[in-house]
Order: sequence, then C-alpha cells, then structure tokens
Amino acid sequence: MTDPIYDVLTIGNAIADIIANCEDDFLVRENIIKGAMNLIDAERAEHLYKVMGPAIIASGGSAGNTAAGIASLGGKAAYFGKVADDELGGVFTHDMSAIGVSYDTKMLTGTPPTARSMIFITPDGERSMNTYLGACVELGPEDIEEDKVAGAQITYFEGYLWDPPRAKEAIRNAAEIAHANGRQVAMTLSDPFCVDRYRDEFLELMTSGTVDIVFANDSELKSLYQTSSLESAFEAIREDCKLAAITQSEHGSTIVTREKTIHVEAHPIEKLVDTNGAGDAYAAGFLWALTNGRNLDICAKIGGLAAAEVIQHVGPRPKVKLKQLVEQSGL
Amino acid sequence: MTDPIYDVLTIGNAIADIIANCEDDFLVRENIIKGAMNLIDAERAEHLYKVMGPAIIASGGSAGNTAAGIASLGGKAAYFGKVADDELGGVFTHDMSAIGVSYDTKMLTGTPPTARSMIFITPDGERSMNTYLGACVELGPEDIEEDKVAGAQITYFEGYLWDPPRAKEAIRNAAEIAHANGRQVAMTLSDPFCVDRYRDEFLELMTSGTVDIVFANDSELKSLYQTSSLESAFEAIREDCKLAAITQSEHGSTIVTREKTIHVEAHPIEKLVDTNGAGDAYAAGFLWALTNGRNLDICAKIGGLAAAEVIQHVGPRPKVKLKQLVEQSGL
Repeated sequence: MTDPIYDVLTIGNAIADIIANCEDDFLVRENIIKGAMNLIDAERAEHLYKVMGPAIIASGGSAGNTAAGIASLGGKAAYFGKVADDELGGVFTHDMSAIGVSYDTKMLTGTPPTARSMIFITPDGERSMNTYLGACVELGPEDIEEDKVAGAQITYFEGYLWDPPRAKEAIRNAAEIAHANGRQVAMTLSDPFCVDRYRDEFLELMTSGTVDIVFANDSELKSLYQTSSLESAFEAIREDCKLAAITQSEHGSTIVTREKTIHVEAHPIEKLVDTNGAGDAYAAGFLWALTNGRNLDICAKIGGLAAAEVIQHVGPRPKVKLKQLVEQSGL
Repeated sequence: MTDPIYDVLTIGNAIADIIANCEDDFLVRENIIKGAMNLIDAERAEHLYKVMGPAIIASGGSAGNTAAGIASLGGKAAYFGKVADDELGGVFTHDMSAIGVSYDTKMLTGTPPTARSMIFITPDGERSMNTYLGACVELGPEDIEEDKVAGAQITYFEGYLWDPPRAKEAIRNAAEIAHANGRQVAMTLSDPFCVDRYRDEFLELMTSGTVDIVFANDSELKSLYQTSSLESAFEAIREDCKLAAITQSEHGSTIVTREKTIHVEAHPIEKLVDTNGAGDAYAAGFLWALTNGRNLDICAKIGGLAAAEVIQHVGPRPKVKLKQLVEQSGL
C-alpha cells in the first residue's frame, strides 16, 4: 500500500443550488415534502423556478459539499461528479478548484444541462430540496479515475447516486479499486426517502462489506431499519457495518462501532439560518479527522464544529476556513 | 398628467454579481482599487475568476438593486437593463420578476454574454467590484419603453450608464419623455471614479435640468466638485439641482434642497457584513418614500433602514421584505 495522495475522494451528483426563502404554506401549496430531497423533471423545474422568489446560486451537491469541507479543513480532497459545459457547470468547476479540490470529471457536452436543486428555506431554517438531475444522469464507470481512487485513504459516496441510472455501477467499481488498494469506502444514506427507494441495496452494500463506514441522520437510520426506535437502529447498524456516524441535529451525534457507542453533544450555535449542507459538513469534519488519525470522539466533535459553521449562513459550503475554526477550538 | 403606473422606473447595467471573500493583500496583488467599481475586459475577467475563491452568485446591478428594493418595500417598480439570453441572463430576469419588478427589456441574442461583476468582500465588509459589461454595451434608445417612462413618477438611472457606448443617448430620451409627462428624473453618481470619467457631463445633466434629484455618497460628491470639503460640496450641489441625497456610511445621510439641509443619523446595525448594495438600497427607500408623499427626513430614514438591512448579509438585495421592516419601525 503506497502513501495516500488524498485524504478523501468523494463521488456524487454535481449540483448548483438555487436558494430562496419561503413560508411553510408555500411548500404545502407546491406539494414539496418539507426537509426532503424531492426529485423533479425538467417541466416541474421550470414551474418551480417560475413561482420561486429571488434566489442566490451556490455550488452544492452533497458529496461536493463534503469535498469542499475537507479542503477547507486543509485536507487533500478529490471529487467525481458530472456537470455539463454550460455556465452553471463552469461555476461548479470553478468553486471546486477554488477551494482546492482536485476535480477533473469530463464535462458533458450539450444537453441535459448541469443539475440544479431549487432549495426553499423556511423560517425555521429547514431546507426542502427540489432536484433536477440534468447532466448527473450521465455519470458512469468511465468517470472513475482509478489512480485517484487507489490514492485516496477513503472513498466516500452519496446514496443519492442510486437515483441516476449508471452511477451505482461506477460506485461498485470504485469500491473494488479502493479495497484492492487497502483503502476504505464510506457512504451517506443521504435522505430518508432515498433510503426508502433503495433500502435493500444500501443494506447489501453494508453487509457485503462494499461499504465500511456509514453516515446517516436519525431519520435516515430509522428509515433504513424501518423502526421508530433509534436505540434499536443503533444495535442493527452495529451488526451491519464497522463504523457508523449518526447525526441528530441539535442533539449532537452518535458513533457506533462493533465494540462501542460514543455520544457527542452538538457544537453550540448563535442562530440557525439554513440547515442545507449540515450533514455534508459533518461528514467532512469527521472524515478529515479520521484520515488524520484522530480518535472517534474528536472526529465527531470536528464534524459538529463544521456543521455548526455551515448552518449559520445561507449556502451549503463553509464561508470561512474550517481549518482556522478547528485550530481556534483546540480540538 | 395621468395617474402614475409606477412609483419608480430604474435604468442601469444589468449585472450578475459573483461574490467571494478575500483578504486585503489579494486586492493589492491583483491591482484592484478597493471600494471602487473597476471596469474589466473579457480577458481580465477570465483571469480574476481563476484566482477568485469559491463564490456565490446573486443578481445585482446598481439600478436593478434599487428597483428590487422598491418592490420589496411594496412599491411599484419597473426596470430597463440588457442581459443576454444565457443562464445568467435567465437568472437575472427571474430574480427581477420574482421580486415583483416589471422588466421586459429585450434580451441580447448571442454574444457578448450577460454582464458579471466579480465582487471581493474584505474582512472590513467593504466590497471591491470588477465589472465586465458584456451585453450591457448593447443597451440603447430602442430599449426605452415610452409608456413605462411616461407612467413612472420618477425615472432613476445610474451614472455607470455612461460607460457603455449607447446608454447615455437612451437616458437623454427617457428624461425628455419623463419631463414631457410631468414626471421627475433622478440619478446616482455611482462611484467616485465614474464621476471622474464623466464629471462635466454629470454636471451638465444637473445644471440643464435633465436631472432633478441626485443621489451620491460623500466620496462621489467630493469627486464631482473636486473638493475635500463636504460642506462646500453641499453648497455647490444646492445650486446645481433641486434635491440631493448624500449618503455618509455610518454617519447617516444629508438631504440638500434649495432651501434647507437635513441631516439624518444612520440606522443602527448589529454587524457590517458586506456594503454591496448599500447605496442602491438607500435610494430605493428614499424614492419609495418620496413617491408615497413622505417628508424628506422620513425618506432619508427609510433609505437608511433599507441600507442597514442590505449591509448585514452577503448580496446586494434585501433578504427580507423591506415593507415589513418599515411597518415594524413605525416610520
């Protein structure tokens, strides 16, 4: 096993976030499931944009946010994800390289355009996403750069990748390459409804050892095991994978391994503005710390610190260097 | 004189803001004049975007921001400004109509693309702009919709329009239409360097009566009269136009008419985040109040209230309904 080139490689749907505030009754009127990632087609995207308020645009995509977070922590990050060669694709590519993520996935020429998610922030800070997958549907095994997978301590991917048709095949290839090189594979369950759509496949990824580390929030974990008891879900995932990090919003996070359970309190915040990117930032902090040899409780604390930064402003990626925040925190 | 259809029509360069944070030494290294609007060509735009950090995109443009502010106050606003039929042009158009501004300027087909300004926010909250004018260079007299000018109580334009080649002709036409319909014409001096470029023409617009109301900040006003004394500049502008509103950052604003001088304190803020759009929001508040029959001191206070909202977050346009803020303030 050679020295790693990257701390973490992440793979996901490459998405431009289009973000606006709205009232709760807007979500009801427009049939948007609150707090969820709602998949939409081009026609509905056009409709929702018409009724959406003034918006700002920021690069997003769950695993993309995680790669950005790792780079912001001073870690070495790489990313695979497909945009089209249009303006939003150019913006996404710029933002990845500007934050220091190695990103060279071949752009799609022509249609469909770069994916976009219309994200509505309600007054409680919760985000409800409406994602048109666009160019992401073309991500396939040909986009797996073998040297990057082989050179990354951890390859991390999002459960959302089960939505486009060919990405899952790419992920299975990447996991094989990673393990053949003595590396680890991690995933996030992404969204409770996504878990609902692909429960059996996600469980198989875990029990077959394709995935070593799982990230989930409490709703996703409960959805995975179809239980209302978080405690039972902790016990179930303890059997199914080596390491799980479960985020619980203001209640902090819980780390579950074969041998133990560690609970860590949430990092304090002044004001919740926008939860968009919270889980992605947590995964960034956790994985960066893990690949830098920190203990699990510190990994969870650094995850919480990163998430706290991201939820206190609009937009899914850190606005300040997370590296400085970690240094200041003494973690 | 028929009843007005609009409180205010604004005319300006239609621009997408690309906003990132930076340190002061970045501005020095890249030869960017701090606090100013630096005009750049396509090649320099490409270079600056390469060295720019991760950014968010928000619709901007000085007069566009003012129109958005007036709509946010519950006023009836219209806008003329030229974008191209590309993604950023679509975003700009969406944001205008989403906030309730009447906006139908014909999009430019093909190149140049929609204008963009790379805006760097230093730790002190000051913004330094780098504007590639793109499609704005095509704004001309054919874009003046006569019925909208005739139907607006005030037609307001930005001094920045003297940079593209044909817009000034459009403005002179619009001013004639406005006055022929018994309406008023207002302008902002935009930027001290812009004043430097077009000092004689701006003074002629005022002394000829083409412009009735002038907005400026203290630097722009001093630049106009080439004086370091704000007091002398107040006396000079008292001679040259009927009404001037001079913003002075944390020192509030001063209203100068033929008969009197009114000083109003700044609206208190918690934290200065980004001065981008401050003057535009002030003009929005002032003009909305003026066209709704308020006294000049209240116009200045509502201007200050609107500016205070905009400078406490990233992005040049209000994030909350200014109408509600005004109602809550009791102004």
